[in-house]
Amino acid sequence: MADAIRVLSMEAVHRAKSGHQGMPMGMADVATVLWTKFLRYDPKKPDWADRDRFVLSAGHGSMLLYALLHLTGFKSVSMDDIKNFRQWGASTPGHPEYGHTAGVECTTGPLGQGLATAVGMAMAERHLNARFGDDLVNHKTWVIAGDGCLMEGVSHEAISLAGRFNLNNLIVLFDDNNVTIDGWATLAETGDQLKRFAAAGWAVKSVDGHDHAKLAAVMRWAVRQDKPVMIACKTKVSRGAGALEGDKHGHGYNLFDDQIKAAREAMGWAHEPFTVPADIKKAWESAGRKGTRTRKAWEDAAKANPKYEELTAAMAGDFADNAFEALDAHIKASLESKPTDATRSCSGAALSHLVPAIPALIGGSADLTGSVNTLVKGMGTYDTADYTGRYVHYGVREFGMAAAMNGMALHGGIIPYAGTFFVFSDYSRPAIRLGALMGAKVVHVMTHDSIGVGEDGPTHQPVEHLASFRAMPGLHVFRPADMVETAECWKAALHAGGPSMLVLTRQKIPAVRTSGENLAQKGAYEVSAAQGEAVVSIFASGSEVSVAVAAQKLLEADGIATRVVSTPCWDLFDAQTPAYKASVIGDAPVKVAVEAAVSLGWEKFIGNDGVFVGMKGFGASAPADRLFKEFGITAEGVAAAAKAAVRV
Amino acid sequence: MADAIRVLSMEAVHRAKSGHQGMPMGMADVATVLWTKFLRYDPKKPDWADRDRFVLSAGHGSMLLYALLHLTGFKSVSMDDIKNFRQWGASTPGHPEYGHTAGVECTTGPLGQGLATAVGMAMAERHLNARFGDDLVNHKTWVIAGDGCLMEGVSHEAISLAGRFNLNNLIVLFDDNNVTIDGWATLAETGDQLKRFAAAGWAVKSVDGHDHAKLAAVMRWAVRQDKPVMIACKTKVSRGAGALEGDKHGHGYNLFDDQIKAAREAMGWAHEPFTVPADIKKAWESAGRKGTRTRKAWEDAAKANPKYEELTAAMAGDFADNAFEALDAHIKASLESKPTDATRSCSGAALSHLVPAIPALIGGSADLTGSVNTLVKGMGTYDTADYTGRYVHYGVREFGMAAAMNGMALHGGIIPYAGTFFVFSDYSRPAIRLGALMGAKVVHVMTHDSIGVGEDGPTHQPVEHLASFRAMPGLHVFRPADMVETAECWKAALHAGGPSMLVLTRQKIPAVRTSGENLAQKGAYEVSAAQGEAVVSIFASGSEVSVAVAAQKLLEADGIATRVVSTPCWDLFDAQTPAYKASVIGDAPVKVAVEAAVSLGWEKFIGNDGVFVGMKGFGASAPADRLFKEFGITAEGVAAAAKAAVRV
Repeated sequence: MADAIRVLSMEAVHRAKSGHQGMPMGMADVATVLWTKFLRYDPKKPDWADRDRFVLSAGHGSMLLYALLHLTGFKSVSMDDIKNFRQWGASTPGHPEYGHTAGVECTTGPLGQGLATAVGMAMAERHLNARFGDDLVNHKTWVIAGDGCLMEGVSHEAISLAGRFNLNNLIVLFDDNNVTIDGWATLAETGDQLKRFAAAGWAVKSVDGHDHAKLAAVMRWAVRQDKPVMIACKTKVSRGAGALEGDKHGHGYNLFDDQIKAAREAMGWAHEPFTVPADIKKAWESAGRKGTRTRKAWEDAAKANPKYEELTAAMAGDFADNAFEALDAHIKASLESKPTDATRSCSGAALSHLVPAIPALIGGSADLTGSVNTLVKGMGTYDTADYTGRYVHYGVREFGMAAAMNGMALHGGIIPYAGTFFVFSDYSRPAIRLGALMGAKVVHVMTHDSIGVGEDGPTHQPVEHLASFRAMPGLHVFRPADMVETAECWKAALHAGGPSMLVLTRQKIPAVRTSGENLAQKGAYEVSAAQGEAVVSIFASGSEVSVAVAAQKLLEADGIATRVVSTPCWDLFDAQTPAYKASVIGDAPVKVAVEAAVSLGWEKFIGNDGVFVGMKGFGASAPADRLFKEFGITAEGVAAAAKAAVRV
Repeated sequence: MADAIRVLSMEAVHRAKSGHQGMPMGMADVATVLWTKFLRYDPKKPDWADRDRFVLSAGHGSMLLYALLHLTGFKSVSMDDIKNFRQWGASTPGHPEYGHTAGVECTTGPLGQGLATAVGMAMAERHLNARFGDDLVNHKTWVIAGDGCLMEGVSHEAISLAGRFNLNNLIVLFDDNNVTIDGWATLAETGDQLKRFAAAGWAVKSVDGHDHAKLAAVMRWAVRQDKPVMIACKTKVSRGAGALEGDKHGHGYNLFDDQIKAAREAMGWAHEPFTVPADIKKAWESAGRKGTRTRKAWEDAAKANPKYEELTAAMAGDFADNAFEALDAHIKASLESKPTDATRSCSGAALSHLVPAIPALIGGSADLTGSVNTLVKGMGTYDTADYTGRYVHYGVREFGMAAAMNGMALHGGIIPYAGTFFVFSDYSRPAIRLGALMGAKVVHVMTHDSIGVGEDGPTHQPVEHLASFRAMPGLHVFRPADMVETAECWKAALHAGGPSMLVLTRQKIPAVRTSGENLAQKGAYEVSAAQGEAVVSIFASGSEVSVAVAAQKLLEADGIATRVVSTPCWDLFDAQTPAYKASVIGDAPVKVAVEAAVSLGWEKFIGNDGVFVGMKGFGASAPADRLFKEFGITAEGVAAAAKAAVRV
């Protein structure tokens, strides 16, 4: 049965002339034991809530997963798809893609992240298990990780988190083959992985990765542990591929026709290419059918469980009818009270209305809880003694946090949000990207969003981050201007089909919104009209909207009709009608943009002859007020720049 | 003496009303023993080549470093600077900044990175030691790291690299105080750090961080080890600050007047604020003077060393007169031969001329050597048996690699370059930013720069990365279009005052440059003129310049005069004269930009009414040619878009 994986992997990679047969052939035995004896899944119902999650962290070995999905009877991967491995339109892209191929639990390829995402899945399972009980939620998360995954820094954050939260439902199968792209793994790695995982609180064992009996025994041991488990599977890369077997050149595509022929002969595999003999296919499908029976039995019992409806709604991501009632009332009240506040506090206020109303929300922070306002009273702390807690102390692990959030969202039943300083979004960026690619609904709360950070200085002051994330497809970047906009952005984020990022101030700023409904959802809108036909349009986001409104007052006092446009979310604006967009951009002869960040992208609003007031380089360490003055990002600075342009 | 650090830290933080006294007070004893008995430095000559490097990885504890610099006699930190801690213009910013304050070896604050940068410093020292001998180069790198540093994933990459390369000149003093911002460190971390470092091949010990005799003994032990050394210093945060001492609230600013008074009294410190009594100041300065004597003795001996001049030139970053001769000849030849090649191969060709001519160049890759063309024959492998090797196998550690490169550059004597896939620049981004902030001269070789990656699919295809790095201040982003431009960009990168990034294709592309000299250095230039007055200007970079030139041919054939502008480096273009910029942008009524990436920022060339041909979202898995067709990034697509705009 394992040879079926090997042959399909060899053949598909050979036909595509690219890809990796090394890992699929090396791990075929491990995968066979896992998928026939241990893994809980149903090819007929890939989204069964209580299935085990299987994450191929070493995503370049995608053929392993495609072979397994095809062999066990998932409809998503046909033999034609395997023949069209890595081709346009096939369900078998170079790396597994969540949402593209049913049965793929997570998009992988950027190394280390599958493991880190799996930690989030396991965290989600423990939480939902605590909430719904063993009968409804009780499953494992299995990970196959390679040398590269374990070299990546994020693996450290992941295994520390798993150790800290004692995720006894997480089992990592390490493809311990000592081969990477450059050659032997020891070229770059001489650490002891077993000791390393043990130091983080894991149960660890080493096993011959080609001995089915020993593999079954160690997996039986693994599922009984009360800790996360790492099993180092000693394997030979490209196992079965003649001279490449166990060789440092065995990682990727480089088999020739005659080598494949020889390998097939050595395996005694006398079938046409892309053909699996009926008896072997039957054996695989029988493993799949066993899973179908397990799922049906679970379903029959589950339907009698009083919490079944609630679980189903949670997994579907449904909101209760009144989920946003309190938030809407808060918006209404804020339109009247016009509070002056930091938008990080505004976000905290929004959360205080959302968290009690939406049980799916699980919050957290990378050791900046008090600063990022993500903790709502009464959430409880997520911890080993009680996984029902809804607040996670992720530690100083921005990347691991973002990846875990993706994992929770992929698992389902949870909408994760968590916060750190905006400048540290650089650390979590690879996971934010993967979340955007997967459409994982998570909310990144990013505070301290400009030189407004003040004394902490340029290491802590984002200037290029807004542009860098506005460039990322599939991610809503929100930079709200006050209490009302912040609440509106939270609402939009929770209704988005993928990840969102809220970019929020440390410093207090005045309210700019006194009327209107759901305006932030349009991405950009006129927040303050001109008295008469506008000569100047000022475009701004976040803390600079109030600066723009103050500049508007100065200009109007000088007889220069000026309007102000708030631009809380550029990609939502892009999605509006051309007529709406034209009306927002307007035709004032002078267009000014102000943002405490670099200019890249603002030409979209002001053209390449507009005036930009903002940052030209990194910030500095001093109180925030002083910095805004020194860098000229003030009402006076904006008014002066606008006047100069009007005079030209 | 340690109390002087404590009192200054308390007072400065109190006066600034922000910052952290917890770490400086907790680690004051460790720092005192280190800076009076072990550290090799000279306050009179902060850039002494053979000094020990001291890196405060826990950069928020900056007052520790400022106090040490002031007390030992560095001119860069006066008592006024300490009084003006975290204020505009002072040499004492919130986090230590390299280049801003003499004696600060590395900008720190983003946690974990100081440690990872220090690994690069230690690697540089081992290389230069092997090249110049013990008499000229033989020093240690000392690091103070906190709980947060060790939680960050990059710490794993750093300690694995240090273990692999057996950096016996690296000593990490871990401030083991079990306190982070959210509270006790155990809230988020229960791993065993000693076992973790030991698993990576380090020598480890634990010590009472307040017992000077024990600290001296353990440091004596540490400097004799033939491995990297980690010492867990058990300390009490805010040691000496009354109730805050050893408390989970002792991390940051929160002492009141009366608490400070009580703390001073308990220490028996009866002096005015910001006053260090003469005898204590004298003792500190005496430690500094001992360093001056050591430096002078070294200098006297070194000047007699035949390699002294060479070391001095290397540390100054001087190039030999003929360093670029071979490259210039290669450019000349390529203008004539007009080779069709992938720009990653063009980069390899440039390196084959540069590496033999510039001994400071140390190359490497994050396990993609064969794909990123960074290895030049004869470089030798950097390894424990022979540190003279000039090629580093960094393993799958993009972030650790970039941070180590920064460290090598900061150490001096080395110009590091190394490669990975462009999409994985996300992993190394935090270090690229810190390098940009510090002006560290390193070259990031980023290949596989678009959907041209092909079959590996969207996880491996950058679409937003060009925009995201063009937004980063202080970083030159080069995207050359062919062999000539690639060589010109390499030359510009090696003459830059800070970091550069070369963004290179996987796929082969035709030559576009057949004349001109050093044009890439202007950032953008007309690469192909129109026949007659241009109706269309096409702007492009990298692989799309040849697409633009092909589109130009189609348009000219239809009687539409068209010019093409290549834009290899936007920030170098920004630095040109307004007249030059206007001439390059030109006044053709139709402006088109084409780039296999998202549009953000291109309005700078084409205004907000121009035509952009490129990506609107993530890519897909298929052969590259197919992808360019499916996404419409072809000569035909560009010509059609231009024609449609001409017709309007």
